[in-house]
Amino acid sequence: MLRPEEVVRDLRARGYLWENAPGLTGMRGPLATLYSSVSAAIAEIAAADSVETWRMPQGISFETLERAQYFESFPRWLTAASHLRDDEAVLERVAHATHPGNEAAKSLDVASTALPPAVCYHTYAALANTTIDAPVMMTAEETCWRHEGSRLSALERGWAFSMREIVFLGSVVGAEAFRQKDIEEVRSFAESIGIRASVVLAADPFFAPTSRGKAILQQVKALKHELVVDCPDGCSLAISSFNNHERFFGDAFGIRLNDGQPATTACVAFGIERWMLAILMTHGTDPANWPDLVGVASAARGISI
Amino acid sequence: MLRPEEVVRDLRARGYLWENAPGLTGMRGPLATLYSSVSAAIAEIAAADSVETWRMPQGISFETLERAQYFESFPRWLTAASHLRDDEAVLERVAHATHPGNEAAKSLDVASTALPPAVCYHTYAALANTTIDAPVMMTAEETCWRHEGSRLSALERGWAFSMREIVFLGSVVGAEAFRQKDIEEVRSFAESIGIRASVVLAADPFFAPTSRGKAILQQVKALKHELVVDCPDGCSLAISSFNNHERFFGDAFGIRLNDGQPATTACVAFGIERWMLAILMTHGTDPANWPDLVGVASAARGISI
Repeated sequence: MLRPEEVVRDLRARGYLWENAPGLTGMRGPLATLYSSVSAAIAEIAAADSVETWRMPQGISFETLERAQYFESFPRWLTAASHLRDDEAVLERVAHATHPGNEAAKSLDVASTALPPAVCYHTYAALANTTIDAPVMMTAEETCWRHEGSRLSALERGWAFSMREIVFLGSVVGAEAFRQKDIEEVRSFAESIGIRASVVLAADPFFAPTSRGKAILQQVKALKHELVVDCPDGCSLAISSFNNHERFFGDAFGIRLNDGQPATTACVAFGIERWMLAILMTHGTDPANWPDLVGVASAARGISI
Repeated sequence: MLRPEEVVRDLRARGYLWENAPGLTGMRGPLATLYSSVSAAIAEIAAADSVETWRMPQGISFETLERAQYFESFPRWLTAASHLRDDEAVLERVAHATHPGNEAAKSLDVASTALPPAVCYHTYAALANTTIDAPVMMTAEETCWRHEGSRLSALERGWAFSMREIVFLGSVVGAEAFRQKDIEEVRSFAESIGIRASVVLAADPFFAPTSRGKAILQQVKALKHELVVDCPDGCSLAISSFNNHERFFGDAFGIRLNDGQPATTACVAFGIERWMLAILMTHGTDPANWPDLVGVASAARGISI
């Protein structure tokens, strides 16, 4: 089994992978094809059970993140987008500058949108202040942005990366049943493509000065599990997470059930590039040895139901 | 035939479309499915002719845009990404703020990456300072960002939108042959799904104070064509463009042919949401009336070759 850094070194040597900046990774040839296959197989897992597919906006409002208490919980990851000030003099100065890139970076307007750090915040914002008559289940894959400073590394920890989530909104019992069922199905899918992985109790890396208590509660109540690849020399790679948020988002976004209570929510997340990395660590970087992913996802669901 | 604003109004009323901010659009239900079908059909057009599929990084360096003379040409569209300063005091201030979104927007570090305004700049950057022995053809679909101020509108003009490009690098003759062949194939594909559209001579909206001359040359030399939907009341919707850059990018990025000359490049671009809009203007917003897109793209290629 290869370690993550060996995989990335081999992929670079083969010309399959490059970076524009730490955590901003491009893929060519068989690696780009593997991305599509993994994305499609995971979409197939998510599409079962009459889950509705959404396509999310590529920006998320600061207000939505405030409502989700994002800034208290994960401020260090925040990434936002800004455009140049819409002022002819500024544009001319940039266009005429000797180093227009530097001039542009200094001339940006105040950021007017955040870039999404996760998929499911969009869901809660779209359903805010509504009453749901029946459980809602949706899925989407989206580019998410989390700046992790010097920890950024290709495939394992992108500044930008692709995340698919399946989100459930409904009753307390329904949310936990969804989460437990998906833990088994996703583990079964990983096994079916040769990935050795374990389901472990986990906690989010909450920002200690404001949110350490949340992590402790999360662990005590067993609200978060991760599917972690068993890898050599103590390296650790979480490829999916299974999260029960209890009534936190239902309450924060005013999403209520028929009985007037806040909805309970749960989500299952897949880091697409990490699933690719798990396949590459297990099967190596020669495309001839990669597993065929077509139809495997539905078979995994069939086995585990 | 519906006008773009009628399409968007109907989609909103059906609950299929929402915006987080002007130009940042989400899709639900059949509209999200239509996105996938259109994206897949256009990917099928692009995948012919042994074109290699790439997956692009979600950020592009300021240096690459400088090399492409982007700032002289299109400064007003520029969008960049910033993260919070990696300073514990800043993070604590944001996490504790009464309005953490505002505090975060004020506490961003200098932007360290631009967000891509087009797909093909990545290609030139990846191949910079190399000699190509045979023509290179590649394709990728990527989220692109262009801030168009008050002109932003759902589907028609996103701040973020999805663009697929097919890029050719090779000889003068090869580049123009690629462009002409694709003009016919893409027009044929549009016809096959009922879209009435015309191929027209076009020019990029270069920034006048520094680059007006480029637009004039482009028109005189007939280097850019667009496929424009024939729509009522003088509205105009360009859904694809076909561009011959002559040796501009080969020269700017040091990409040479075996004879030492700069490569000639050409690209064909598809605005995925605009293709969706063209389908919706033509066939209406009721999913029962939308054309089946599976296999249509390869048929269109078959007819026109």
